[in-house]
Amino acid sequence: MDPLDRYLADKQAEHLEDLLAFLRMESVSTNPAKAPDVAACAAWVAAELERAGLKATLHPTAGHPIVYGEWLGAPGAPTLLLYGHYDVQPPEPLELWRNPPFSPTLEEGARVVARGATDDKGQVLAHVKALQALMELHGRLPVNVKVVIEGEEEIGSPNLPPFLEEHRERLRADAVLVSDSSMWAPGRPALMVSLRGLAYVEIEVTGPSHDLHSGLFGGGVANPLLGLSKVLAALHDDEGRVMLPGFYDKVRPLSADERAEMASLGHDEAAELASLGLAEGAGEAGYSFYERTSARPTLDANGMWGGYTGPGAKTVLPSKAYAKVSCRLVPDQCPEEVSAAFEAFVNEHLPAGLSAEVRAHHGAVPVMVPRDIAAFGAAERALEHVWGVPPVYTRGGGSIPIIATFQEVLGVGAVLMGLGLQDDRLHSPNEKFELSCYYQGIRAAAWTLIEMSKQA
Amino acid sequence: MDPLDRYLADKQAEHLEDLLAFLRMESVSTNPAKAPDVAACAAWVAAELERAGLKATLHPTAGHPIVYGEWLGAPGAPTLLLYGHYDVQPPEPLELWRNPPFSPTLEEGARVVARGATDDKGQVLAHVKALQALMELHGRLPVNVKVVIEGEEEIGSPNLPPFLEEHRERLRADAVLVSDSSMWAPGRPALMVSLRGLAYVEIEVTGPSHDLHSGLFGGGVANPLLGLSKVLAALHDDEGRVMLPGFYDKVRPLSADERAEMASLGHDEAAELASLGLAEGAGEAGYSFYERTSARPTLDANGMWGGYTGPGAKTVLPSKAYAKVSCRLVPDQCPEEVSAAFEAFVNEHLPAGLSAEVRAHHGAVPVMVPRDIAAFGAAERALEHVWGVPPVYTRGGGSIPIIATFQEVLGVGAVLMGLGLQDDRLHSPNEKFELSCYYQGIRAAAWTLIEMSKQA
Repeated sequence: MDPLDRYLADKQAEHLEDLLAFLRMESVSTNPAKAPDVAACAAWVAAELERAGLKATLHPTAGHPIVYGEWLGAPGAPTLLLYGHYDVQPPEPLELWRNPPFSPTLEEGARVVARGATDDKGQVLAHVKALQALMELHGRLPVNVKVVIEGEEEIGSPNLPPFLEEHRERLRADAVLVSDSSMWAPGRPALMVSLRGLAYVEIEVTGPSHDLHSGLFGGGVANPLLGLSKVLAALHDDEGRVMLPGFYDKVRPLSADERAEMASLGHDEAAELASLGLAEGAGEAGYSFYERTSARPTLDANGMWGGYTGPGAKTVLPSKAYAKVSCRLVPDQCPEEVSAAFEAFVNEHLPAGLSAEVRAHHGAVPVMVPRDIAAFGAAERALEHVWGVPPVYTRGGGSIPIIATFQEVLGVGAVLMGLGLQDDRLHSPNEKFELSCYYQGIRAAAWTLIEMSKQA
Repeated sequence: MDPLDRYLADKQAEHLEDLLAFLRMESVSTNPAKAPDVAACAAWVAAELERAGLKATLHPTAGHPIVYGEWLGAPGAPTLLLYGHYDVQPPEPLELWRNPPFSPTLEEGARVVARGATDDKGQVLAHVKALQALMELHGRLPVNVKVVIEGEEEIGSPNLPPFLEEHRERLRADAVLVSDSSMWAPGRPALMVSLRGLAYVEIEVTGPSHDLHSGLFGGGVANPLLGLSKVLAALHDDEGRVMLPGFYDKVRPLSADERAEMASLGHDEAAELASLGLAEGAGEAGYSFYERTSARPTLDANGMWGGYTGPGAKTVLPSKAYAKVSCRLVPDQCPEEVSAAFEAFVNEHLPAGLSAEVRAHHGAVPVMVPRDIAAFGAAERALEHVWGVPPVYTRGGGSIPIIATFQEVLGVGAVLMGLGLQDDRLHSPNEKFELSCYYQGIRAAAWTLIEMSKQA
């Protein structure tokens, strides 16, 4: 056994303690009431970087702070830029958690259940612990390292692009390494080669100026909930295709080679559906489940509300109805164009007697990563060292909005090394992270730096 | 001026004080947390009946108590059964009230704003104050009086029918008089000749067994919110007709005479829409606004919810979506049949990959009242005495589920004497009751008893 691997094995208990501490912090970036928790979490991350021997600073922004750290003691060696986020999704609905979402709980001694466990605290901390271990063992790191860990990824990273623009020179690197995704399966490591983009809008429909009695006014005026339902129902045709005007115009068709690479992974659709309690899937006709969820553009309603939602019956004809609706995008779709298409669609399909406002939330550009850069090869070898098998190439259905920005602003390729598993329930109740993923992830992170240094 | 009318004019300040006290009680029947408030309100009403010289009792039920009172000191005279309710709708959404809903507020010295002001506390108390005044003036009432004031009208009166069945003999009367509706317009008193029925269901749609990340699973599985929207969108055709199977089969067509009587009221649709902030109405083609809202059956969504409804963006693909949907019914539609039709419709229109449960809330049978009973004539003369003009005959779009039960179980005709105004915002924020309606309503209630005694 390599001394590094042995050293890491001895440190597991300590590494776990620190992960639990990280997960206790309620760094919900979208909730203004949690701003103090988010700030405390940023300070904790900075202290962890300092423990690894990096010079760490907190960069205030208009929103939540960005943690930056660097160690540049390997002149002539490559430079790796690590990116991650310390903020988490809201934990609601709370009643579906087996334990409170910010009281991390070990289940079966094999995994930790908590909001943020896999997205992205567990994966971020794996890298930080790798840095700490290498520094403790050798007093230095094998390559130069720059670290950017932000607190606004879950709300679209509004303040990271300006930070990258401003510090473009300081952040210069040979590659950006990101662990904010998953392996293909237990024991099957993966490098992700594409991510979908995002266009997210909120629709507010107004009918009468105030809530009305549905007996006295029902049948006389348009119902905002029913009108909004008409709009949402028209968003897909019977083949599961998205009906927004121009939606597919810029979609790059999947090539036969791309479809073959995806098919070679042998995704088990039946097993996946069963794990979701479903007998059948749904979506765009003519594509496999894996293609539909990662390489084809989609549209979902993420939330909807209006009228009386409490217990019992209230005979109200509501004044307002709301929906949150979002699209996952693929190259070369543009989030702004899709948001604009929403507005046109809503105005076209809303029944008479109602009016609507469409507001765009954050978007994300779809991403393809380069496979021909040195860091990609280093990551491949590191994963094979740790897991005993070479990684597969996967496509991510989610969005990491900032990856496109890194590639564009810094002109640097991204390596997407997922350390989680696909059943980690990120964004859902009972989100979890396998301890094996955490410990192997620390090894993979450390070995990627070592493999990068060999290439120099 | 008649001595009774003069006496009532002198008592206005005291009558107003008592109305404010009634409105301060948070008797929200649908909210289990308010059960103690509902019980306190029942006791208050019983005490008011005792003040009028009635023998009052509280009848416990499986839900909220029924207040019963009677005065039978006029042997040989007719007997009038007064019915009303002391419970109120939930006050939500609270943020739209100008003042707290249970802190009754006088506006412009002309009206009181509070939950329950017109529905039904103000109208109920008008009758009680009339009884008190007649008793104070004469030491007796002109006719025998029985009073049933329940606390579950807003949740469908589940415990009143068994009460009526059990006390069928004791409740024997010549007519039941109800004030739980409105005048036609300020200065234009009305007797309501029909009420719509109600079928109310709650739909729960389930997709995946837990909330999912819309990036990782979007496009792969059916979305419950979008599926429910497809169902709701299919509930009306482009002509505003309800598409539930068999919905119109038992609807009695409106006769030319009925339509002429309704048209003669000269309902000002443009003014009504303007008061709702609307440029145009909506609904079933071929019928006037007034017909659509009172004499034709309709379908509305009363509430809908699912997924993330908080501030900002959450990229969730929810497991569940819910809607509350209800129909207003006209003779001879049957609530149970319509609820069953909902279940069939949902199962037929729900997209693949989703399942649904349809639960029926309370229903109400549609009602026509007899115009040829003595109490109807007494009410007509009383209203003309008070307002100086004879009442018009109106149709009510809402439901008072118990009216049909009174007519069926007790075999007694109902007289529906609305004391409110159509713009009273019942069930809505800033519900109000005009003080003029209250004071004239007390007179009308008292004179109805006097006119009834003349017929004996």
